[in-house]
Amino acid sequence: MPTSRLEAFADGVFAIAATLLILNVSVTGSPLGPELLKIWPSYAAYAVSFVTIGIIWVNHHTVMDQIGRVNRPFLLLNVLFLMLIAFIPFPTRLLADYISKPDGVTAAAIAYGLTLTTTAVLFNALWRYAAGPGRLLRADANQRTVQGIGRSYLPGPFLFGFATVVALVNPYVSAALYAAIAVFYVVESSLFGGRG
Amino acid sequence: MPTSRLEAFADGVFAIAATLLILNVSVTGSPLGPELLKIWPSYAAYAVSFVTIGIIWVNHHTVMDQIGRVNRPFLLLNVLFLMLIAFIPFPTRLLADYISKPDGVTAAAIAYGLTLTTTAVLFNALWRYAAGPGRLLRADANQRTVQGIGRSYLPGPFLFGFATVVALVNPYVSAALYAAIAVFYVVESSLFGGRG
Amino acid sequence: MPTSRLEAFADGVFAIAATLLILNVSVTGSPLGPELLKIWPSYAAYAVSFVTIGIIWVNHHTVMDQIGRVNRPFLLLNVLFLMLIAFIPFPTRLLADYISKPDGVTAAAIAYGLTLTTTAVLFNALWRYAAGPGRLLRADANQRTVQGIGRSYLPGPFLFGFATVVALVNPYVSAALYAAIAVFYVVESSLFGGRG
Amino acid sequence: MPTSRLEAFADGVFAIAATLLILNVSVTGSPLGPELLKIWPSYAAYAVSFVTIGIIWVNHHTVMDQIGRVNRPFLLLNVLFLMLIAFIPFPTRLLADYISKPDGVTAAAIAYGLTLTTTAVLFNALWRYAAGPGRLLRADANQRTVQGIGRSYLPGPFLFGFATVVALVNPYVSAALYAAIAVFYVVESSLFGGRG
Repeated sequence: MPTSRLEAFADGVFAIAATLLILNVSVTGSPLGPELLKIWPSYAAYAVSFVTIGIIWVNHHTVMDQIGRVNRPFLLLNVLFLMLIAFIPFPTRLLADYISKPDGVTAAAIAYGLTLTTTAVLFNALWRYAAGPGRLLRADANQRTVQGIGRSYLPGPFLFGFATVVALVNPYVSAALYAAIAVFYVVESSLFGGRG
Repeated sequence: MPTSRLEAFADGVFAIAATLLILNVSVTGSPLGPELLKIWPSYAAYAVSFVTIGIIWVNHHTVMDQIGRVNRPFLLLNVLFLMLIAFIPFPTRLLADYISKPDGVTAAAIAYGLTLTTTAVLFNALWRYAAGPGRLLRADANQRTVQGIGRSYLPGPFLFGFATVVALVNPYVSAALYAAIAVFYVVESSLFGGRG
Repeated sequence: MPTSRLEAFADGVFAIAATLLILNVSVTGSPLGPELLKIWPSYAAYAVSFVTIGIIWVNHHTVMDQIGRVNRPFLLLNVLFLMLIAFIPFPTRLLADYISKPDGVTAAAIAYGLTLTTTAVLFNALWRYAAGPGRLLRADANQRTVQGIGRSYLPGPFLFGFATVVALVNPYVSAALYAAIAVFYVVESSLFGGRG
Repeated sequence: MPTSRLEAFADGVFAIAATLLILNVSVTGSPLGPELLKIWPSYAAYAVSFVTIGIIWVNHHTVMDQIGRVNRPFLLLNVLFLMLIAFIPFPTRLLADYISKPDGVTAAAIAYGLTLTTTAVLFNALWRYAAGPGRLLRADANQRTVQGIGRSYLPGPFLFGFATVVALVNPYVSAALYAAIAVFYVVESSLFGGRG
């Protein structure tokens, strides 16, 4: 089986999940001006989740570039992985809505973190499966690129897992960490990615 | 006519129907933590429907791989089939919302089952039409693969039809069967699909 | 400019507009069973609009097959055309919601008809523009196919325009005509399209 | 890296953001007929934003045609750019809802303008990055086309920025300017684009 239809389906889910995030941004009350400023956590949550989904999309892109064919277990692993991508709008809304409510912010930050941690775990599982000996890599896959991918995806689950655990102590620091991970990645890629 | 635009449209509907499922997951009331646990049927319904749509997408993928060209009746059969795929988010919401309400759970489980049964019937119709003598198969379609597809899609309507009938007796068993069908398929593909 | 990205954007809008129709189907009140039967106009409106969008998508497919390149006016005509496709979910919801409310059903049927009539007018405009002398047709476009397309799209605006005018007299007949147009097209294609 | 998956993801976001705009159009109250006329700002906002997104999509198309490969910083710039495209439905809803409410119309017009201005700035940034010496242009990119693109995108931020500042004085003139920019572009392309 070729990889093109998996990419089309995956790109669809990435694009829709990212675009649906805007449905979480809404305003009630008046006057409008001050209200638009007051809902800044909605904008921040929108931006962090959109960029995070975008980064995962870029990485999925990188992985698929090294893959020559797909089989059924790999397609189904992708379905599970995309199920988590499509889930992200829900904890994003929770985090935006509850960041200013002391009795819900911890649960919201944990829900966000668990979703992202599981997504990162599945992304690593995807890659380990594809890159296993004699599996799905292209015949001409670059060995250094393959090892680089393996190394660079390993920290994901630990980073998001750590930020999730931090939520138990201080959910605001946890939310800041989710934003920091997204910003770090964009900056890091801007500085070093140009060479790739 | 080539098959590429049908695949693009179909992949779009599959991806959107699956991603829209997240709009069914929402929470009200407080405190947030216990509420997030209480809405577990939403997560289960989301996962079962997402995986079910994903499995049907994988199968559609397999069918399209054997097809060399499309004609108008086949395109319109696909439109009817995709109309049912795009319908799945509605009974999914019903099942999640009414699983804990005795006066609605039976109707919700039947609605879910009827939708999936009809989808499976149309999927078989699609395949029978395409695989008919001198129809749409690729000149080099593998005869064993073609027969295997025919056989493996036949049980779908009966499985979902049976689970729908079970809903008349016990809607909870019916809901468990919908989940079991999804889990069975994923496990079965993981064990045997790797060889494909 | 190649036609591929226009097709990707158009297929996206077609697929999303069709799939968003499900958001119009919802149920309130109890018990659930009878309520699910009572909202049959929602199902009918969903099916008619989904199939209508599907038919227009098939026709767009047919047109694009004859086109070799696109230019800016054609792209922008497509944007206007797709703006109407994406509008269809709104009058669909109106028709489903107001079919049982005497003080709104006429307005709803007119809104539905005006949307579809304008869509059909723009579709003809698209095709006239593309098929104009020395414009966008492929060098090897089949002259008979081109003339057949021109002829078969001509009745669209008149059919939908007629059903819209009927709404002024009897909105229920008008709604039945919208359904009949969709059914007619599917049946006609099933009988004759297989040869194409 | 090839450009095809970026185009698929971008086309997805463009198509979804444009199609989601219809969710902003809704009607309450009765009788339906007069209400449908009263919500004309919803239709105007829908049309202006849809056409604006369509124009940006056409331009993105033009840019990608000149690009031979993508790298990580360019992918991430695109993610940020698409984050703004997907944001457009929110200020569109604000403008439609608050155009008739004196205490919110200024804030709504500013929110709309800031979104479009930032989008235009990022679009220029995208292009400057791609067209930089030795960057991402195709080896056979036409030098005149490249310079033409650079020139024609330059006014965007200033046009939208000006309309945003006008909102401080008169938000209705500002809203009219947003519509005028969309109309101007469509007309201008219809007159001159056919030669391209």
